[in-house]
Amino acid sequence: MKKYVIGIDLGGTKISTALADMNGTVQSLFTCPTEANLGEKKVVENIINTIEKVITEAKSNLDEILCIGIGSPGVLDLENGEIIASPNLPFTNFKIVNALKKSFDIDFYLDNDANVATIGEYILGAGKGKDNMVFVTVSTGIGGGAIINGKLYRGNTSNALEVGHMMLDVNGPICGCGNYGCLEALSSGTAIAKKANQALLSKAETSLRNYKKVTSYEVFVEAKNGDKIASEIIDTSLNYLGVGIANIITMFDPSIVVVGGGVSNAGDEIFEKVKAVVKRRNFKVMSDNCEIVHAKLGTDAGVLGAVSLALLEGKKNLK
Amino acid sequence: MKKYVIGIDLGGTKISTALADMNGTVQSLFTCPTEANLGEKKVVENIINTIEKVITEAKSNLDEILCIGIGSPGVLDLENGEIIASPNLPFTNFKIVNALKKSFDIDFYLDNDANVATIGEYILGAGKGKDNMVFVTVSTGIGGGAIINGKLYRGNTSNALEVGHMMLDVNGPICGCGNYGCLEALSSGTAIAKKANQALLSKAETSLRNYKKVTSYEVFVEAKNGDKIASEIIDTSLNYLGVGIANIITMFDPSIVVVGGGVSNAGDEIFEKVKAVVKRRNFKVMSDNCEIVHAKLGTDAGVLGAVSLALLEGKKNLK
Repeated sequence: MKKYVIGIDLGGTKISTALADMNGTVQSLFTCPTEANLGEKKVVENIINTIEKVITEAKSNLDEILCIGIGSPGVLDLENGEIIASPNLPFTNFKIVNALKKSFDIDFYLDNDANVATIGEYILGAGKGKDNMVFVTVSTGIGGGAIINGKLYRGNTSNALEVGHMMLDVNGPICGCGNYGCLEALSSGTAIAKKANQALLSKAETSLRNYKKVTSYEVFVEAKNGDKIASEIIDTSLNYLGVGIANIITMFDPSIVVVGGGVSNAGDEIFEKVKAVVKRRNFKVMSDNCEIVHAKLGTDAGVLGAVSLALLEGKKNLK
Repeated sequence: MKKYVIGIDLGGTKISTALADMNGTVQSLFTCPTEANLGEKKVVENIINTIEKVITEAKSNLDEILCIGIGSPGVLDLENGEIIASPNLPFTNFKIVNALKKSFDIDFYLDNDANVATIGEYILGAGKGKDNMVFVTVSTGIGGGAIINGKLYRGNTSNALEVGHMMLDVNGPICGCGNYGCLEALSSGTAIAKKANQALLSKAETSLRNYKKVTSYEVFVEAKNGDKIASEIIDTSLNYLGVGIANIITMFDPSIVVVGGGVSNAGDEIFEKVKAVVKRRNFKVMSDNCEIVHAKLGTDAGVLGAVSLALLEGKKNLK
């Protein structure tokens, strides 16, 4: 009988694999270095090894596993279980699902990390049971995903919810994507660090000068300590983040927006600021009926997301 | 046997009612003044009269009608078939479906005009058969709707796709909604007219001075004639419209965006400008795979939309 699913978080640095029961409760977890520098074959070996480890540790066997979910960064061909390109992995046009199927005769589901994180928050996290949910993750970059009527919404080319590249200021700063005034260029960790380092080139007095290297983390710290320059940078970026989330609500009218990623973990005070902007800049009927909450899965988002992917897809086939 | 549906476009000025076959081909059409000033009872009488007229004219009878769709402006309670409030109609908390059911024992489906127009373009118009479609209408205001996986997407509070109130310029002009820098405040007919009238208060030389009253229409005409002020106003507003549509594509990744309303009818040249902005400001993979086309239903959008609503909802119940 099928009692478990397995989720694999394939990252550039490490592979995290978990075996969980049908409620998503983790029974065994194993993490190892990806060893991306040792090439394709070695990485596949490492993945296979983690799968075997979690099955053994849970005293289970392959017959009890419903299916396996894999979350991977990069450009993917989901239908063919293929990693087309991924900056931190040694895979190019690599049919990873076929490669793994040689060792395990079981269904695999591959999806990109933003989608996997969205599914994770929907199945096991802050958006549990919310059938119209938008997930936004704010870290180095800004990404997202949406659950619409209980299903992950992919869009026509599987690129829906590129929320980081929603433009909020036509004449704003250039973004990594080449466009101008994208949310990511205004509110991401990268944008905050960039602004701080620009400020350091001026003659402005700021406690940020006490650091050898200034990332968004130091800007958050010094803003909390009352530094004027740091506070202005954080306020501006949170204002834009609020406007971005307000636009998401205006467009999708979800019942919940789940916010994850480093910037969202910078404290409740920060979070309240964003919520206040949304409230001020949204139609009341929509913002009054839409919770904005922290993501729940935290550092395990990747592997729990992969478990959730397996649960969501695997259970479909049980029906 | 059910051979026909009826669609009613309930407007503040006129009521248009059509009887159409199951392919949406109109068999009879009748239009009369709404007579909103004569009150609730009279308007209902007028609606009943149009229904009887289109049935008689098509030599049909109620037994042959599958169901009736009604498109209405205003705030609606769709489930209860109720018009809660509508600026140009004499209805407040009025259960219009119940009132009509007293005369016709048949299923009625009520929806707001933006949704009805979206369904119209999906069932009978430019988005026929496109299961991931966004409709944007640019006139006095800017509204929209989306078809997601073949279904009208309403959102949590039935207010999804308020595209006119997506913010594109945090520090932009005030919008009718009280917010700042909304697409509607930047690109609607109202916004264009407002900008032109502001320009007329300056000393700038412009052929717009030749008109007694300047609406967006005159600005489009004079831009075409090469007037510098008019051209600048149109270019700026089309640029924002392009950015707005680019954002829609970034978020929904649809296979088609259908653009309707007065501004979209201002000529192909205008349309090409908007498309060029979208192409420049979108991820290539998404914009290359998303058509941007004119709405097809034109002046009959309201009544054909109501026919489409009846077809979409009625056929569901046939299954």
